[in-house]
Amino acid sequence: MKILTKKREIDDFLGTLRKRGEGVSADVVNNTGNILASVRRGGDRAVRRYTRKFDGHGVLRLAPSKIKKAAGEADAEVVKALRLAARRIRRFHRKQKERSWSFAEKGARLGQIIRPLRRVGVYVPGGAAAYPSTVLMNVIPAQVAGVDEIAVTVPTPGGRLNPHVMAALRLLGVEEVYSIGGAQAVAALAYGTESIAPVDKIVGPGNIYVATAKRMVFGTVDIDMIAGPSEILVIADSSARPDFVASDLLSQAEHDPLASSVLVTTSRVLARAVEEELKAQIKKLKRNATARSALRRYGAAIIERSLEEAAEVSNAIAPEHLEIMTRNPRRLLPRLRNAGAIFLGSWTPEPIGDYAAGPNHTLPTGGTARWASPLGVYDFVKRSSLLEFTRQGFLGLASPVERIAEAEGLGAHVASVRIRRKA
Amino acid sequence: MKILTKKREIDDFLGTLRKRGEGVSADVVNNTGNILASVRRGGDRAVRRYTRKFDGHGVLRLAPSKIKKAAGEADAEVVKALRLAARRIRRFHRKQKERSWSFAEKGARLGQIIRPLRRVGVYVPGGAAAYPSTVLMNVIPAQVAGVDEIAVTVPTPGGRLNPHVMAALRLLGVEEVYSIGGAQAVAALAYGTESIAPVDKIVGPGNIYVATAKRMVFGTVDIDMIAGPSEILVIADSSARPDFVASDLLSQAEHDPLASSVLVTTSRVLARAVEEELKAQIKKLKRNATARSALRRYGAAIIERSLEEAAEVSNAIAPEHLEIMTRNPRRLLPRLRNAGAIFLGSWTPEPIGDYAAGPNHTLPTGGTARWASPLGVYDFVKRSSLLEFTRQGFLGLASPVERIAEAEGLGAHVASVRIRRKA
Repeated sequence: MKILTKKREIDDFLGTLRKRGEGVSADVVNNTGNILASVRRGGDRAVRRYTRKFDGHGVLRLAPSKIKKAAGEADAEVVKALRLAARRIRRFHRKQKERSWSFAEKGARLGQIIRPLRRVGVYVPGGAAAYPSTVLMNVIPAQVAGVDEIAVTVPTPGGRLNPHVMAALRLLGVEEVYSIGGAQAVAALAYGTESIAPVDKIVGPGNIYVATAKRMVFGTVDIDMIAGPSEILVIADSSARPDFVASDLLSQAEHDPLASSVLVTTSRVLARAVEEELKAQIKKLKRNATARSALRRYGAAIIERSLEEAAEVSNAIAPEHLEIMTRNPRRLLPRLRNAGAIFLGSWTPEPIGDYAAGPNHTLPTGGTARWASPLGVYDFVKRSSLLEFTRQGFLGLASPVERIAEAEGLGAHVASVRIRRKA
Repeated sequence: MKILTKKREIDDFLGTLRKRGEGVSADVVNNTGNILASVRRGGDRAVRRYTRKFDGHGVLRLAPSKIKKAAGEADAEVVKALRLAARRIRRFHRKQKERSWSFAEKGARLGQIIRPLRRVGVYVPGGAAAYPSTVLMNVIPAQVAGVDEIAVTVPTPGGRLNPHVMAALRLLGVEEVYSIGGAQAVAALAYGTESIAPVDKIVGPGNIYVATAKRMVFGTVDIDMIAGPSEILVIADSSARPDFVASDLLSQAEHDPLASSVLVTTSRVLARAVEEELKAQIKKLKRNATARSALRRYGAAIIERSLEEAAEVSNAIAPEHLEIMTRNPRRLLPRLRNAGAIFLGSWTPEPIGDYAAGPNHTLPTGGTARWASPLGVYDFVKRSSLLEFTRQGFLGLASPVERIAEAEGLGAHVASVRIRRKA
């Protein structure tokens, strides 16, 4: 991991981070477009054809008995852990529930009605990166929001079901599960087929084909976000333990060669010690090739003169995960503008947030934390404004409304008010 | 306006509505892409070049004295109306403010921090369709959210400033105003130039070039939504006044030949009377050619047997504006799932919501009310999750976190927990 101290070096590195994962090849775009178009036209038959081709089977909907059987093979301790995690995630997300409101004034009632989406699709990756935590983090907020129907797609390459994913689905009571994946699953959810009803929104992570398909169907349905490679930024002073810092930097680096792990510190001594720790710890990792590649390209220790300046670097990067390991982590909080999730203190490592703390692990990446939020209950509801005027209330506003409509040259707007004034 | 009674006719019409405004020509996409690329490369010089070409002047930032002078030419009664509207819009949007929260449990504190976006760009159309109400509806929610910097772009073809738009900017205290428009304005806001700092989010309506540019820069910055043609749907029974209904249908039809005006009613008598009224009222409109074209293609009266069935048709269309003119409008409310704004009763015509009632007039179109919300304060804030564990709190969750991380095959996640357990 390089140690950066000069402003120009730091700016160059921020530029490199920003360009990470930019652009999708024309091939991916074309292939995805073709799959979407065939499924839109061909429905179930097209989905089956692609599923045979990519996953080697032709099953669309998973029978409850098959889900139950696969879930039965899950490790009992893992299932217990998932149950605890689900309980904590549900409790946290309940705090995000918003209520409809309205208020009366002379001659009018105005308000905002909040309603859950009717039907949502959750994409759960399959194969090597099949994560039961994805099920918890995407399904629970939708359930808390009150979504009527939740359909899950999870590809099962070779027809093999992941026991822990199936256990997670069962413990949440999800029954509508399709063993399909890729752009064909996104297309089926967006457009609907003979056997899969279309949804209002698609959420969940996926590979480049899934991400591209989501981007393309946006407008026909809503989507959550396009997740980029994972990121961690640690702000630390000389009080931080280098072994803790190093292990947390590695916990993101192991995800993806494009993952980014950045330390911003006031202590050059700490930076050097973290470097040593990384060298020692990385050897023991199964995914050390991935972590090594990520650290080489998108890892750095940035030296700043003060924690305030460190916070500014963090705000510019707007990291997905931000850990604060300083003497007084809370004191820095007001300065931290942009981050998906903030982990305070040495005893709050990022993995605790990935699984069991309660907040969502689906977080804005690639600098989008400047404007985007963690996945939450608010992603599964929408608002309608409510307006109700009495005749008196209407008459009180009629004249200003006419004036503005006239100034904007909209005669029928004026007429709609005038016809009532004269009534 | 056609009267539809048969299920097949109605389904065909819904299909026509859905396809309305679908697709953007390759020319528009290419031209917009070129403009974005030149501004990204060329900065101010490129913006000036396009502004000279399209608007006939080379001014970027409007001097306060010029804004003041133009605002001085505004009609005093209109300015008074805008001031009243601004007050009411601000009061309504204040109710949308959300607060950060956190809660403690044994060994942990968890929460959600809500922060305003730092810098936002508001695109205000210029020329023929320069609307002061656009300024109020886009700037006020950002101000209520607490956005630090609001930059407005408003093209001024031929260098002519719209007095009412300038008056609206002045009464809200907006000082950073650029007299640029089109894709070049969107590019300047997204990428920044020597004299225009980049923003975090771009909001506001615009023509097809502006909409296409917003779609293309999404990801570099956030955008509000892609506004489609305007829509109104009126649910009415035999108690409704045909002249009121007709005038409200026309108030949307005058906007755009692609606008849609739909009556859904249980009364064939009302449908016929509305048809007569439309014929009579449309003659008096200045924009009657536009309204006529919109009504012919995207206007219809749909006859349903019950108000419940009428509500289902409305839910399927998910209109931008939904008016309820029935004997007991409130009774229908629980059945109305999808609508940008709901106007209850005969004395709540849609134009009152466009200007002065208080709720936002930027509403989801094209069926997106199934998942999208009116523009609001929530569009100008973002959330960060907050996690803080003590050593004891951490140890209580360490084992389940390790189990799940192991099941997902993420060794560095396991190590980050284990290294602390052993510490």
